[in-house]
Amino acid sequence: MRAVEALFFDVFGTVVDWRTSITNEMKNFAGARGLDADWAALADHWRGLYQPAMEEVRAEGRGWVILDTLHGENLDKAWAAFDLPALDTADRKHLVAAWHRLDPWPDAVAGLTRLKAGYIIAPVSNGNIALITNMAKRAGLPWDVVLGAEVARAYKPMPEAYLNSAAAIGRAPEHCMMVAAHNDDLHAAKAQGLKTAFIPRPLEFGPGGGADVEPTGDWDVVAESFEALAEELEL
Amino acid sequence: MRAVEALFFDVFGTVVDWRTSITNEMKNFAGARGLDADWAALADHWRGLYQPAMEEVRAEGRGWVILDTLHGENLDKAWAAFDLPALDTADRKHLVAAWHRLDPWPDAVAGLTRLKAGYIIAPVSNGNIALITNMAKRAGLPWDVVLGAEVARAYKPMPEAYLNSAAAIGRAPEHCMMVAAHNDDLHAAKAQGLKTAFIPRPLEFGPGGGADVEPTGDWDVVAESFEALAEELEL
Repeated sequence: MRAVEALFFDVFGTVVDWRTSITNEMKNFAGARGLDADWAALADHWRGLYQPAMEEVRAEGRGWVILDTLHGENLDKAWAAFDLPALDTADRKHLVAAWHRLDPWPDAVAGLTRLKAGYIIAPVSNGNIALITNMAKRAGLPWDVVLGAEVARAYKPMPEAYLNSAAAIGRAPEHCMMVAAHNDDLHAAKAQGLKTAFIPRPLEFGPGGGADVEPTGDWDVVAESFEALAEELEL
Repeated sequence: MRAVEALFFDVFGTVVDWRTSITNEMKNFAGARGLDADWAALADHWRGLYQPAMEEVRAEGRGWVILDTLHGENLDKAWAAFDLPALDTADRKHLVAAWHRLDPWPDAVAGLTRLKAGYIIAPVSNGNIALITNMAKRAGLPWDVVLGAEVARAYKPMPEAYLNSAAAIGRAPEHCMMVAAHNDDLHAAKAQGLKTAFIPRPLEFGPGGGADVEPTGDWDVVAESFEALAEELEL
């Protein structure tokens, strides 16, 4: 495993607990305005529109669009689906930026700090650079470099998302390891020659939410936290 | 000045002492091979080919090429100009990567660490992402995000190099400050609406080498080190 020089991290679900964070943002926003809804359900609905929106970009029917833009469009749809009163521009902007304010899982900062001592650590996320940078600054995620969709100009699981990220840091794919809580991300990374580490996050979609808990591929590492990953990688 | 949210750093000459580093790399390389030349002069010659090579890309007569590629081509020219024996592939690669191993000026790491507490700190360099990432990892430069030529797909001083870097982190140009030892970089940044900080590095080109020592524009800050810049920015 010493041939690995860089660790690529999925972010939403793997590094940060988007569901709890978005639900709490919604509750705080709603509380000040007397709005009522099942905010966790709205968070799930909003997140559920993520893959179809990216697919419009991946399928090339639509030109390149950053995730902030897709989050805004999807918020409009989710808001309407829950029969909530229309958002003004400032409120819409505030809620879209909630994805810049997600809290990390408890092991994330300590684990990344440890992993950084031995590897280049980089987000390879579908989040845009501003989102990932603001999130890291707020949460203390010690990335060496921000890679991913906006640098690669491709959304995962497109091959270019992995290959262009590896090329950007001048590494062959086999010297990079994708770290994710999602088997599909790892299958796509492995198909391009990257090493793989599966870190299940059973509560990503809430209790009984159906997160990936078992590996569905022959991943190089399976560990229950970033700290356990550091152990596996002998740091 | 509190409206500034991000500090953009020129790297070659402003953060790192490329001339001493490249000269020492050359001496070490040559010593093991019994080669002799004025290595500081070769470093200067190599660096002197930098702007003309980028101009071929900027003028759009040539498609996008990363700086590592230009450094390799320029090394071939410099090597020939000094009548040195041809380099094999591994040696050429080793010397091109010397630009990934530049040492920072003495105040750089401590100053950046302090500035990071109050601002997003990002290289906005003509160096490619791999070069900047490897340099940062080796030298301990604590960047929040790597911006610059490869993210912007434009070499400074093209307007897009500054504007696309600001846009990548979701900031208006006036909320970004360009920090550089070169007046021409600051003139170009200011023309796009960025704030400016001039940090002269009198020894960039060696003693009497003609580095910029006086500001030629009305820069927002003039300071003699990154630590002094942190003082000016009230950190």
